[in-house]
Amino acid sequence: MNRSRVPPPVTRVLDAASTWLPRRMGEVEQRLATLVASHGERLGGEASATLSAGGKRLRPMLVLLCAGPDGDEGAVRAATAVELVHMASLVHDDVLDAAPLRRGRPTVVARSGRGAATAVGDLLFSRAFAELAGGPPGGDRRVRLLAAAALGLAKGELTQRADAFNAEISAERYLDRCRLKTARLFECACLIGGEPDGDAREALATFGREIGLAFQLLDDVLDVAGPPERTGKARGTDLLDGTATLPLILARARDPQLAALDLRRLNADTAARACDQIAATGVLDEVRADARRRVESAKAVLAGAPMDEERRELLTLVADGVVERYS
Amino acid sequence: MNRSRVPPPVTRVLDAASTWLPRRMGEVEQRLATLVASHGERLGGEASATLSAGGKRLRPMLVLLCAGPDGDEGAVRAATAVELVHMASLVHDDVLDAAPLRRGRPTVVARSGRGAATAVGDLLFSRAFAELAGGPPGGDRRVRLLAAAALGLAKGELTQRADAFNAEISAERYLDRCRLKTARLFECACLIGGEPDGDAREALATFGREIGLAFQLLDDVLDVAGPPERTGKARGTDLLDGTATLPLILARARDPQLAALDLRRLNADTAARACDQIAATGVLDEVRADARRRVESAKAVLAGAPMDEERRELLTLVADGVVERYS
Repeated sequence: MNRSRVPPPVTRVLDAASTWLPRRMGEVEQRLATLVASHGERLGGEASATLSAGGKRLRPMLVLLCAGPDGDEGAVRAATAVELVHMASLVHDDVLDAAPLRRGRPTVVARSGRGAATAVGDLLFSRAFAELAGGPPGGDRRVRLLAAAALGLAKGELTQRADAFNAEISAERYLDRCRLKTARLFECACLIGGEPDGDAREALATFGREIGLAFQLLDDVLDVAGPPERTGKARGTDLLDGTATLPLILARARDPQLAALDLRRLNADTAARACDQIAATGVLDEVRADARRRVESAKAVLAGAPMDEERRELLTLVADGVVERYS
Repeated sequence: MNRSRVPPPVTRVLDAASTWLPRRMGEVEQRLATLVASHGERLGGEASATLSAGGKRLRPMLVLLCAGPDGDEGAVRAATAVELVHMASLVHDDVLDAAPLRRGRPTVVARSGRGAATAVGDLLFSRAFAELAGGPPGGDRRVRLLAAAALGLAKGELTQRADAFNAEISAERYLDRCRLKTARLFECACLIGGEPDGDAREALATFGREIGLAFQLLDDVLDVAGPPERTGKARGTDLLDGTATLPLILARARDPQLAALDLRRLNADTAARACDQIAATGVLDEVRADARRRVESAKAVLAGAPMDEERRELLTLVADGVVERYS
């Protein structure tokens, strides 16, 4: 595949809904920029760097797509809030890992220390709930959904801490953690913009969870496969943080040397070597295939659910984009 | 004053509203205990220790008092939420300071490390908003108030970080920080339980802010005056964290040695000696007097505001209790 000739997945979705989606996404960017400006001096450099570092804005796009072209201001606020909670969790994760880079740029914690990073995360988090409460009716339902997702993020992080440096966790426990840390915010993104009910609600929730899981699985493959120029971080960062992900969990069953690996004793070199060993077992293709199956099942759920054709097609494009980004 | 014969301020308020307040406070405790239980294994030890370490529950009491005897389930949920945000901020502050003790007990960060503590704080924070969203109508207004207060906490923390190890900040900047870090949550506590409007709303907001500031001023006096057996932490903890509070700011103008103090070079012994020097300048009585004036002005605002006599009397007892606790 010649990547240079394929429009990035996000662009393709924007083009497919060019009459309304780019404008709404622009409103989300505008809200994010305004709130950075409104916290002025105190936040300034910190959060503006965090916000402008960008990212794919995949979650807000899901919010707006699921709300559809008739979505109101509440949908734009919800999209903004979901992105803010995502950013807050990134900032706090970096505090925990003391990560030097995020998306190829210095993290808040690297530039300003733990104190500022913890507070910046708290600020983004608070601002997310303020977004929801200031909008049109339905804020209560939206707060409930976002609070539940944020709770999931925190619980997932606690699971990760409890399992730190333990390579012997099961694939099921790994998936449970991913459901909390990643899939629940995707699920929330699919439900928070509009008010789907019954079968449509169930389908959107399942769709969100499954592409969220696929996204995380592929992200964990990237941590092993690299390359750093593309991921913006060193290979084996998860291993160095003491986090066992599915590639290692599966590879341990095939390579006795990996089974004996002590995560506490890794350095950058031995972590990179462990990545090579994991790749040599062939598990990366299996994990990629698992992710693809989840994306296919997410699309199948949409196909059987009551919703208009445009929404189904756009969400299908997003789902394909999650896989394509990593292929 | 023979302290053993004076009932603690909290007990006195509970007694004065014995027909309804103790029951409501019990409901708040019950909600706090239930949510700890509901997060089971992951949170277990962490948050249950944090929650059961107790504290005065001053903020939830303010919520319930301001809502009055006719307050609904929303008031109890709001009281719970305000305490959860307070706890989340304590847990995160301890992450920043890597504080070993809080209320005389090991902190979450000391027991389980930064990772768990950041996540526990996030969890308590998320749970606070979930409390508000799950209740009777009015949740939107409550979320708005609590999010604004939480935003204030984060901004105050960022100010404190920006000023860390800088002893040359002005008294006004110190007070600004206290308004954000302490007074806004007290103000929120006074407004979030019921729906006061007009003059009553203004009076309750001012009352909350002023007793919040008084509370913080007296807390900062305690950090200098000790004794550790009573405060549960070493004297001079703020100085060691690099935080200049009003006693030091005022004392620097009177004692050239203090004016030359380099906060970066302190250890436990020199910090305790600096506390002695601050006390010797006589500023502690001035700060205490400032706090008392604020409490008196808070009571005066209530006296001029339209509200029923019982509420005014109970809030006056709380205001007196803030001072008494430290005298």
